[in-house]
Amino acid sequence: MKLDIKEKNNYTLLCDFYEFAMCNGFFESDLKDKIVYYDMFFRSVPDGASYAIIAGLEQLIEYFENLKFDDCDIEFLRSKGIFSEGYLEYLRNFEFKCDVWALPEGTVAFPQEPLVIVRGPIIQAQLLETMVLLTINHQSMIATKANRIVSAAQGRPVVEFGSRRAQGYSGANLGARASYIGGCAGTANTLAEKIYGVPAMGTMAHSWVQLFKTEYEAFKTYAKVYPDNCLLLVDTYDTLKKGIPNAIKVFDEEVVPRGFRPKGIRIDSGDIAYLSKEARKMLDDAGYPDAKIMASNSLDEFTIQNLLLQGAKLDSFGVGERLITSKSWPVFGGVYKLTTVEEDDGSLTPTIKISENVAKITNPGFKNLYRLYDNETGKAMADVVTLHNEKIDDTKEYEIFHPIYTWKRKTFTNFTAKPLLVQIYKEGKLVYKLPTLNEIRDKVQVELDSLWEETKRLDNPHEYIVDLSYDLWKIKEDLLDDHGKTYSRR
Amino acid sequence: MKLDIKEKNNYTLLCDFYEFAMCNGFFESDLKDKIVYYDMFFRSVPDGASYAIIAGLEQLIEYFENLKFDDCDIEFLRSKGIFSEGYLEYLRNFEFKCDVWALPEGTVAFPQEPLVIVRGPIIQAQLLETMVLLTINHQSMIATKANRIVSAAQGRPVVEFGSRRAQGYSGANLGARASYIGGCAGTANTLAEKIYGVPAMGTMAHSWVQLFKTEYEAFKTYAKVYPDNCLLLVDTYDTLKKGIPNAIKVFDEEVVPRGFRPKGIRIDSGDIAYLSKEARKMLDDAGYPDAKIMASNSLDEFTIQNLLLQGAKLDSFGVGERLITSKSWPVFGGVYKLTTVEEDDGSLTPTIKISENVAKITNPGFKNLYRLYDNETGKAMADVVTLHNEKIDDTKEYEIFHPIYTWKRKTFTNFTAKPLLVQIYKEGKLVYKLPTLNEIRDKVQVELDSLWEETKRLDNPHEYIVDLSYDLWKIKEDLLDDHGKTYSRR
Repeated sequence: MKLDIKEKNNYTLLCDFYEFAMCNGFFESDLKDKIVYYDMFFRSVPDGASYAIIAGLEQLIEYFENLKFDDCDIEFLRSKGIFSEGYLEYLRNFEFKCDVWALPEGTVAFPQEPLVIVRGPIIQAQLLETMVLLTINHQSMIATKANRIVSAAQGRPVVEFGSRRAQGYSGANLGARASYIGGCAGTANTLAEKIYGVPAMGTMAHSWVQLFKTEYEAFKTYAKVYPDNCLLLVDTYDTLKKGIPNAIKVFDEEVVPRGFRPKGIRIDSGDIAYLSKEARKMLDDAGYPDAKIMASNSLDEFTIQNLLLQGAKLDSFGVGERLITSKSWPVFGGVYKLTTVEEDDGSLTPTIKISENVAKITNPGFKNLYRLYDNETGKAMADVVTLHNEKIDDTKEYEIFHPIYTWKRKTFTNFTAKPLLVQIYKEGKLVYKLPTLNEIRDKVQVELDSLWEETKRLDNPHEYIVDLSYDLWKIKEDLLDDHGKTYSRR
Repeated sequence: MKLDIKEKNNYTLLCDFYEFAMCNGFFESDLKDKIVYYDMFFRSVPDGASYAIIAGLEQLIEYFENLKFDDCDIEFLRSKGIFSEGYLEYLRNFEFKCDVWALPEGTVAFPQEPLVIVRGPIIQAQLLETMVLLTINHQSMIATKANRIVSAAQGRPVVEFGSRRAQGYSGANLGARASYIGGCAGTANTLAEKIYGVPAMGTMAHSWVQLFKTEYEAFKTYAKVYPDNCLLLVDTYDTLKKGIPNAIKVFDEEVVPRGFRPKGIRIDSGDIAYLSKEARKMLDDAGYPDAKIMASNSLDEFTIQNLLLQGAKLDSFGVGERLITSKSWPVFGGVYKLTTVEEDDGSLTPTIKISENVAKITNPGFKNLYRLYDNETGKAMADVVTLHNEKIDDTKEYEIFHPIYTWKRKTFTNFTAKPLLVQIYKEGKLVYKLPTLNEIRDKVQVELDSLWEETKRLDNPHEYIVDLSYDLWKIKEDLLDDHGKTYSRR
């Protein structure tokens, strides 16, 4: 099928104005061709989780592929009255020249790790900041949240129901995509299936039931149209006294006689733990042990965990606003920081952003990222951020150490070191073959299987080790020492 | 200037799948032409506020204007295998036939009030649910949050800085629009100015400073390019010992000699209350009492209120993630409920959605909404939800009463009753002239001026009166009584 719409507006101007102000400054100061390196990374995971599921690279690539300034854009920028004609001419002839490395979508990542590395002339690399962050932050947040909720559901399908409460259209569409990457079984959003292939599903709202004189008549009419997909919403009037008895009656009268089995019921209000247990008995007693019970209504990972702890008899979940907005923690705080300046002789000068708040001090340098897997268990043991050209030789012993408490050391033997970053662009040319959405979703499962359960715990998870290689650590220490010479504490 | 992009994708399929399932059911059950009425309303305001600023109607109208199914949509829906060819043919020839009433953008609204009323054949009215909610929920949430932050800033400009942390592209673009409606002075998002006319602004990031060998050189280079717009970010290394002295030196050397005055400085980290007071002294002593001090870094209404209480010397604020995601309360819980069914003889049958949770019981009937203003003070005293054809005669005394505690009564004399809902569509034709964005923003100011300060308080505001007219109240009571005949408490 031909897809005639992707979310493919020209988002070139979806860019903080200061990027343009700075880039015009670079142009006017003859700095525009200075080659620099930026890292995108995050400092903590929403909800106090230990890991994030990274998503959004496909949309970031779409942005890069469409990165151009049409006449209307140029005219608009000129109207701001601060840009030189030379700079505007540069934008009009914009040709993307950057190298980009990134973690593939579906990768599990930890704080302080480079998710995206951009190398290129500063006049371009700086300009990408807003969209790199917006795109990866949003989908990584939702994929991570979805993964927590799916994990709480312990194998029961979770369907994303949140479009009506999403933060804008792409909040709904890309949110559905990211939810699917994070493990949801589908979405209520029809457009997300058409654009991205996320299975769209759904049966009836309360308004269907209200429209008829009686609930029984509403159910009966629905069953006649959809005898093979009969999932009835039973809480419009009184779940146990009316809704379920009416549903059973209609299953008996309209579904079974046509040779189908009922799909089940959905409960959207009330004491769902109690109601589901009663509903299960009623359905079993009526000869429908195969009819499923779906719950919805302000669910998230903790309400689902609690429902299951109480022995709720639930087979699937519809999760809305608390997923599509990541309600409990609606910001994924990825940042985009200058790490390296390439000198005229080609040598690399690492740079650092100092902060009173030491957690905000950046890691300098052009990097690589390795994950060390134990060869016996197959489990991920630690990640190491290295300089880009460093290789970790996994045929030998390898010692890592905590970058602050350097006496905390650990030696690996019998391990495999896997580099995680993949080159996406080479001098502005796409050199990466995009995986399908289902390949991304499958990758998440493989990644999760490689983590210890303690790392995946919803509350107070075990902190995963992310260390710096000695060479990278030494560069950072030297830069901090250097800074210390002119620094004094308040 | 010609604007070549609005966020004008075909969002017809951005619709919960169950709407299509139900509408196909209506079609197959010969119910498609049944005329019904839906209300959109909300039950509480984010952050415990008493009122919301309603926004998003312009985008909702764009959706209605573009509501059609192209061949690709039909082919996609057919592939789902549950829709009849008759229904698909209906969609292919879709012609919007609904009447729509709504509160104009920028209106102050309170819980339980109809924000949007849709009247039309159920096969259409039902289908609109997802987009009515998504569009109005999102922008109303952000406009309301922006208004709280702007109010805390007590007249100092607030600029929306949040694109990089927004929930998707329209989260950023429409979020900037809604922030401006709520009172922000501008946005960092360049595209939001091009599309919507929200003033875009910004000067430099830390990376500008890092790129040069010294902060002084970075400032000097910037001042040479922008002597007339020189606002310097002073916290990259050490705000008081390096940043501000360097800024003053550059103001002296590069700004004043060219005949300009410096714009000021921005502080993005550290103890902003303390730093701003020191910075003010240093700038004043250097002869720059007119240089402004802008603060950014994880601000919201409460941090701004606290900074000002501490005597921080701040002139403007950049507010990012906590505004663009409404971080403290990222969901605006508007709902879309069936209120009325039109019988074949044209009479209206009001419907009600019962819930164990009485706060979730809906108000039945086709409605109107009046705001009663005191003629002496000009202040809004109470809102009254009435039946659509009721008129409140403000030449006479008018008594209102609490819909539950009916002994709580109040009588108005010398007042003006203003109906708030405006007809937007008549039988599918747009009959409303859209205001400009600045007209909407100005309307907000007028609306706010009509509220008592106690209603606008950030914490524990006074609850504004929203009552039902006697006729509407009676209809609801009768429906509840009727329901009570077959209801028993658990």
